[in-house]
Amino acid sequence: MSNYPMVPGHEVVGEVVEVGSNVGKFTVGDTVGVGCIVGCCGNCRPCKSDVEQYCNKKIWSYNDVYTDGKPTQGGFAGSMVVDQKFVVKIPEGMSPEQAAPLLCAGVTVYSPLNHFGLKQSGLRGGILGLGGVGHMGVKIAKSMGHHVTVISSSDKKRVEALDHLGADDYLVSSDATRMQELADSLDYIIDTVPVFHPLEPYLSLLKLDGKLILMGVINTPLQFLSPVVMLGRKTITGSFIGSMKETEDMLEFCKEKDLTSMIEVVNMDYINTAFERLEKNDVRYRFVVDVAGSKLSQ
Amino acid sequence: MSNYPMVPGHEVVGEVVEVGSNVGKFTVGDTVGVGCIVGCCGNCRPCKSDVEQYCNKKIWSYNDVYTDGKPTQGGFAGSMVVDQKFVVKIPEGMSPEQAAPLLCAGVTVYSPLNHFGLKQSGLRGGILGLGGVGHMGVKIAKSMGHHVTVISSSDKKRVEALDHLGADDYLVSSDATRMQELADSLDYIIDTVPVFHPLEPYLSLLKLDGKLILMGVINTPLQFLSPVVMLGRKTITGSFIGSMKETEDMLEFCKEKDLTSMIEVVNMDYINTAFERLEKNDVRYRFVVDVAGSKLSQ
Repeated sequence: MSNYPMVPGHEVVGEVVEVGSNVGKFTVGDTVGVGCIVGCCGNCRPCKSDVEQYCNKKIWSYNDVYTDGKPTQGGFAGSMVVDQKFVVKIPEGMSPEQAAPLLCAGVTVYSPLNHFGLKQSGLRGGILGLGGVGHMGVKIAKSMGHHVTVISSSDKKRVEALDHLGADDYLVSSDATRMQELADSLDYIIDTVPVFHPLEPYLSLLKLDGKLILMGVINTPLQFLSPVVMLGRKTITGSFIGSMKETEDMLEFCKEKDLTSMIEVVNMDYINTAFERLEKNDVRYRFVVDVAGSKLSQ
Repeated sequence: MSNYPMVPGHEVVGEVVEVGSNVGKFTVGDTVGVGCIVGCCGNCRPCKSDVEQYCNKKIWSYNDVYTDGKPTQGGFAGSMVVDQKFVVKIPEGMSPEQAAPLLCAGVTVYSPLNHFGLKQSGLRGGILGLGGVGHMGVKIAKSMGHHVTVISSSDKKRVEALDHLGADDYLVSSDATRMQELADSLDYIIDTVPVFHPLEPYLSLLKLDGKLILMGVINTPLQFLSPVVMLGRKTITGSFIGSMKETEDMLEFCKEKDLTSMIEVVNMDYINTAFERLEKNDVRYRFVVDVAGSKLSQ
């Protein structure tokens, strides 16, 4: 594969410039999006249940090998070719840069809330960790009409959470008094922390039948005590991006709720700086690279 | 409390000999049962949702303190006084000794299958550990029309599981080949193991959306890797006995399915031997003490 440079970039939005003869869903000129995956086997149980993100043969949008044996190349490119199954229409009136972070971060949060019956208004949710996915969690949960508590290890993001993102409450996990006060109060927690952390304190915040939904890929075993789960019939689960169907539903939901994410749009010539800032968590909350705009400026 | 000897005994079946003036559910002569709890607060969210087993103020059937400040005393007695809320009618035609183990072990298995939407026929279930609750798990899951695999750490209980309890398959957890064969095949596992054990091998047996339901109160933290849960949207949960409503439903279900449990009926004068045998796991699968019969023989 040395002949092919790796082209990264997921959460891609662009314009349809050409369609194959079997394409019925799109026409030239449509604004469309591509998320994390561009292929699946089509025959396994997850594929047949329209949750192709759980297919064992899913193909990533970049740095993977496509069915033709060539590497997949992502959105940091002038154009990409994608099977229509893995393309969604961006709703009329939604800007491309706003749509982009919804295609992975957005659906990653939307999918479990949808799947686990947590969409109805009035629920009380917790968002543990305020990064790219966490910020989207606050936005989407608030749009569903939930009471949202951001839970963090320090006080640093309090103003951000309450004043800029519109969360209802902010809880520092080391504040034993408030952790006790909020015990048995949440219907769910979206746990975006990507490193080892104890689960007990967060399980204790959940009500009877509450759900702890893990989003962080963590290769150190997480731990919990069985009675804490059993005595409140609590659920520890996790979820992985979302299906194409859910991505479509989520985009319509965000359009309807006029949901906007916090992004910083940059040009391609800023990309190395952007990566350096990403390593320092210095972004609120997603860089969106204006690839087309960058090309025009060359 | 030194004036009151501890009287144990849950899973109690008896005949109504007297009713209070406000009792509408029962009349003298009814055959009725009492399970693990005889009181709850009546005001909390679990109580108001008819899942009083999750009330923080539930009162155990014995060795607890009742609302009058006196110790609760269980079924190893000539008679007991119980609030009608915590009494169930034993269906016509079901023998008292058969009904008894259903009142705790039976409903402990029935409740999560019912609550988590796992009652329909055709499901594939695993029962991890073949003791009192596990044996009831096989019986109830088979009666629901499930394909049942008993999972055990050794080959010792194979004949018992397949020939006597009617399980469809038997899986030794150290058999790597068969564990691999059965990966991604089960809708749920009822995990009755009461000591620390790794969860990964059992999570791997579950299908997409499969559920690992813990029944063992284990005070050593259990461990799992988050990607194993996330990449199959799997659920780790647990459950604690069942509600009075579910106990009634479960008794009707067992009556209808003609479900019988494996029990050994003993007299009161055998009780010390029974306890010694219990400590050696030498019982298939529950001792039922014939208290009334023992009194008559004195």
